[in-house]
Amino acid sequence: MNHQKFDPLSQENSPILTCIKDIYKRYQPINEGNVATYIPELAKANPDFFGICITTPDGQIYQVGESQQSFTIQSISKPFVYGLALADHGVDKVMSKVGVEPTGEAFNSIVFDEDNNRPYNPMVNAGAIATTALIKGEGYEQRFDRILKMFEGFAGRSLTVDEGVFQSEKSTGHRNRAIAYLELNAGMLEGNLEEHLDLYFRQCSILVTAQDLAVMAATLANNGINPITQQQAVNPEEVRAILSVMASCGMYDFSGEWLYRIGLPAKSGVGGGIIAVLPGQFGIGTFSPLLDPRGNSVRGIKVCEELSQRFKFHLFDSHPVSQTCVIRTYTGAMVSSKRQRRGVQRDFLDREGEKILVYELKGDLYFATLEKLTRQLQNNQKTAKFIILDGHRVGNVNSSAITLLSEIKQWCFSQEITLILTGFEPKTTVRLQDNNWTDDIFVDTIDTALEWCENCLLSEEYNGITTVKNQFSLEEMDIFKAFTPEEMTALAPLFSEVSYQPNDFIIREGETSDRLFLLAKGMATVSLRLSQKEQRKRLTTYIPGIAFGELALFDINVSQRTADIVADTEVICYVLEFNRLKTLLNTKPEVYIKLLQTFGKTLVNTIKRATLEIRSLSV
Amino acid sequence: MNHQKFDPLSQENSPILTCIKDIYKRYQPINEGNVATYIPELAKANPDFFGICITTPDGQIYQVGESQQSFTIQSISKPFVYGLALADHGVDKVMSKVGVEPTGEAFNSIVFDEDNNRPYNPMVNAGAIATTALIKGEGYEQRFDRILKMFEGFAGRSLTVDEGVFQSEKSTGHRNRAIAYLELNAGMLEGNLEEHLDLYFRQCSILVTAQDLAVMAATLANNGINPITQQQAVNPEEVRAILSVMASCGMYDFSGEWLYRIGLPAKSGVGGGIIAVLPGQFGIGTFSPLLDPRGNSVRGIKVCEELSQRFKFHLFDSHPVSQTCVIRTYTGAMVSSKRQRRGVQRDFLDREGEKILVYELKGDLYFATLEKLTRQLQNNQKTAKFIILDGHRVGNVNSSAITLLSEIKQWCFSQEITLILTGFEPKTTVRLQDNNWTDDIFVDTIDTALEWCENCLLSEEYNGITTVKNQFSLEEMDIFKAFTPEEMTALAPLFSEVSYQPNDFIIREGETSDRLFLLAKGMATVSLRLSQKEQRKRLTTYIPGIAFGELALFDINVSQRTADIVADTEVICYVLEFNRLKTLLNTKPEVYIKLLQTFGKTLVNTIKRATLEIRSLSV
Repeated sequence: MNHQKFDPLSQENSPILTCIKDIYKRYQPINEGNVATYIPELAKANPDFFGICITTPDGQIYQVGESQQSFTIQSISKPFVYGLALADHGVDKVMSKVGVEPTGEAFNSIVFDEDNNRPYNPMVNAGAIATTALIKGEGYEQRFDRILKMFEGFAGRSLTVDEGVFQSEKSTGHRNRAIAYLELNAGMLEGNLEEHLDLYFRQCSILVTAQDLAVMAATLANNGINPITQQQAVNPEEVRAILSVMASCGMYDFSGEWLYRIGLPAKSGVGGGIIAVLPGQFGIGTFSPLLDPRGNSVRGIKVCEELSQRFKFHLFDSHPVSQTCVIRTYTGAMVSSKRQRRGVQRDFLDREGEKILVYELKGDLYFATLEKLTRQLQNNQKTAKFIILDGHRVGNVNSSAITLLSEIKQWCFSQEITLILTGFEPKTTVRLQDNNWTDDIFVDTIDTALEWCENCLLSEEYNGITTVKNQFSLEEMDIFKAFTPEEMTALAPLFSEVSYQPNDFIIREGETSDRLFLLAKGMATVSLRLSQKEQRKRLTTYIPGIAFGELALFDINVSQRTADIVADTEVICYVLEFNRLKTLLNTKPEVYIKLLQTFGKTLVNTIKRATLEIRSLSV
Repeated sequence: MNHQKFDPLSQENSPILTCIKDIYKRYQPINEGNVATYIPELAKANPDFFGICITTPDGQIYQVGESQQSFTIQSISKPFVYGLALADHGVDKVMSKVGVEPTGEAFNSIVFDEDNNRPYNPMVNAGAIATTALIKGEGYEQRFDRILKMFEGFAGRSLTVDEGVFQSEKSTGHRNRAIAYLELNAGMLEGNLEEHLDLYFRQCSILVTAQDLAVMAATLANNGINPITQQQAVNPEEVRAILSVMASCGMYDFSGEWLYRIGLPAKSGVGGGIIAVLPGQFGIGTFSPLLDPRGNSVRGIKVCEELSQRFKFHLFDSHPVSQTCVIRTYTGAMVSSKRQRRGVQRDFLDREGEKILVYELKGDLYFATLEKLTRQLQNNQKTAKFIILDGHRVGNVNSSAITLLSEIKQWCFSQEITLILTGFEPKTTVRLQDNNWTDDIFVDTIDTALEWCENCLLSEEYNGITTVKNQFSLEEMDIFKAFTPEEMTALAPLFSEVSYQPNDFIIREGETSDRLFLLAKGMATVSLRLSQKEQRKRLTTYIPGIAFGELALFDINVSQRTADIVADTEVICYVLEFNRLKTLLNTKPEVYIKLLQTFGKTLVNTIKRATLEIRSLSV
């Protein structure tokens, strides 16, 4: 699968950008609300500024309007600093200092969770100050440097502080200072209060753009990995915590209604910014300094509401009800590996192949799609000795699916069933390996897995499948079943016996096709070189009695070999060079015709098998 | 895809049930907490009772312990009655009477949203009483009947009321009565207060089991459709609202921490029940009457927490970051339809086929996976005149994807590109049709769509593609290109000319194969009867110059026809009955051999094409 990076400029005509521009135009005329005035510097904001940016986890940026305009991050800093506190101390310690309950009150309210002697949550000022107080470091400079670096990790670029706003906050933030002193008085804060307050005022004065906010939100959507730098800005556990507090308390006393109407974890700041996150999918950043009485950007809320409604982004918008992920099931009796088998082995596998069950999966794997697979497994457990789960059509695999696959593995073990996974992407197998799955469970293709299972069945029955019969005679070849002794007498002199050592090339890709081969002893494998790689794709393995290279019989001296055929063991072949057939045309044309018809019939059978395979693959 | 119903009993050994049993055993020994005592009847509850049930949207039930034990629903009634109020009055009216903001206070607290003169949310008692007061109906009996019917719709069975608990609530619910009178005093309530209170006490006294709760939760997970009865119990818009208030306020002053730790919309009741919902996937119902000081079931919380952690059910648990849904792209120049073309038309399509772009999609479709498709479309827009999106490997398609597909359609229109969708499931095409997509956009297979696009290109160039040349002579047949006039003189007498009218069967499936056909004039189509249906699957269409039925040449008088071939137009064929070939063996064996080799070569080409097709389909 190609993972192409596109030039953002090339997205001018994108259906998504078109849609965002449309929303931008719709809400630009709105001039309700007021710029923040509680500190003098913020009152200078230009009320006309309006920018929207959406960023995907792989770094695609859609932006409209003043999305490059800087403004101070303000309260949007809170969830990020909360993440840093969690990384510094762990959940238990942080939870003992700051709760996670919404208050239903304004951002600057002076209420505390008195039962637990802590501020209610890290999104109100009281909780945010207590959170900042937890940030580790030696002294103000080092601590602020850690905070700034953290933000830079999220934004994917260097950030600066608006010193004017900082000084303004510091000199006029009397209410915040009061809150902090109340916390100090109640024993909720430790350490140097003025230093904590300076850090808090300064973190709020960091300059960002709507695009920065979108990238920060996309980092949260991307399990903590910054889409621009590909660096892990924050651990996934902290992402979960950050999104949870954003969802329950991110919009102050509008949080409940925001969750109700827009349904995305979000955070606003009095600088005019809003971030919102759809986990796994994208981050939104908006900027418009006109605020409603609760301190949330008027246009920002409208933009998010319209996006959520138009695209049904609400976390609880009607979810597709998941169907089973199984699109095809069959047994080893219905489909066999491409390894050719003869006689009793073929008959045995036709009977016992039922013990091999193949489930081909498609779509995304998560709890509900795999749950339905478990029912089908359940239903077939009596016959199964081997279960092959094929994932080559599988899309995303979420963490629930990883857990449930492990439960399925455990269950197979308890039922004495061998589980094999084929065709899953490496990023999935790596995650399963982290869950103590061993390498031998993962196989590239269904065919390889089927052959392995067949070999297991055969080796139980026959104590080893490679028991090599003595050399086949020419008459014993499959192709000559219907030939009379007289006809064989005419044909025999045309063949010569050739021996090969293991790993000898019998046929090389690209060679001229001027002969055909009958395998009298040993085994040989057909394989393709995959482009640009050392890897080979095995197509089939031949066993004695089989003809190969026979396509050329109908295209003498013109066609070239399309694959390599290599001896797996010592091999003996009967080889027919086509130029020897000329004599047959003169002496025994009816034998020549019979030979062509017999080989032609094998081609017809090949076509019929291929047609069936194409039909079943086209499901 | 088979949609099998399974006997719940057969799930005894299921990996999922095993896991739930494990969790049950782990928390059964816990006996922290107390049964509710605020009304005398509830104090009689057996503290040992413990049941867990998980129900899927298609009605699979996994249950352990006392999941069939009845208890009163209590506060779990609140979100459901809220849904009924929304259905009765719409969001705006209900929102004017009851907010959606969490309070951070206990369920029975006496606080109101004084700015809006309403209780804060429908999950605290004050809000629930105001909600119940909104339920429509003539008088107490009819109103309660509507409430009970609504619950029965969710539970999928008849429910009854515990009259003892009801009387107990009614006679001792002084605090709730006080709350109601305060609301009446403030003008938040209208109508008959005692009737509202009776309804409220009675709705809390409805008897349910853990299994009922799980089915009710699964109904919410299933967009409002009851998994047992398949009836719509509530509209999807109400489901979204119900889940939103459950997420923000469902667990009272533990809501924030619940969302933080467990991350699922949920509701608890003092009867000992908890419901939790993972939208689209399942509902959980637990029952254990031992409550913590906040009134939430101790074991119920532990069970939900363990399930959430073990299976990563948290709404904000690390989400797989979506990749593109495109697994394969090609142009009409690389892959052509199965409609055979000759000469200039073939050459023209080899050049102009670039204007047809095929994108084969896989996995679930939602905003982020389709967003990546829009970039690829963007990149190829300059050449494209036709875009085919194939969905036969697509899993679930969510509402965001439906919207974005419509934006893509709009974009194609603006770029003068014709959009065709192939292989999407009917349930998806129906939803697109609801979005004003017309029927002609949906085509069954890529092949049909490719042929249609090819025909469009050809008709522009040639003003109609069905221009029928005069009848081909025998020498003009593709198969005889390399034959000399002398050889043709030997062959010609073996062929007879046969005419067919439109819709005549030229070959019938099952007939003995004793002749081959060369198409001299008109067109004929190969098709298969699909089992049990009147439908036919078209395999290919033949045009003049082509041979068919020739496989039988190598399997004379043994094989049977495997498909029907029907004349589309007036058709003339040159027919070779194989028994006439015997004379050729005696008179001109070398011509016979050349004939076999020539047809054999076409078989080889068929095999090579089939091999390529299998390889590309096996992606």
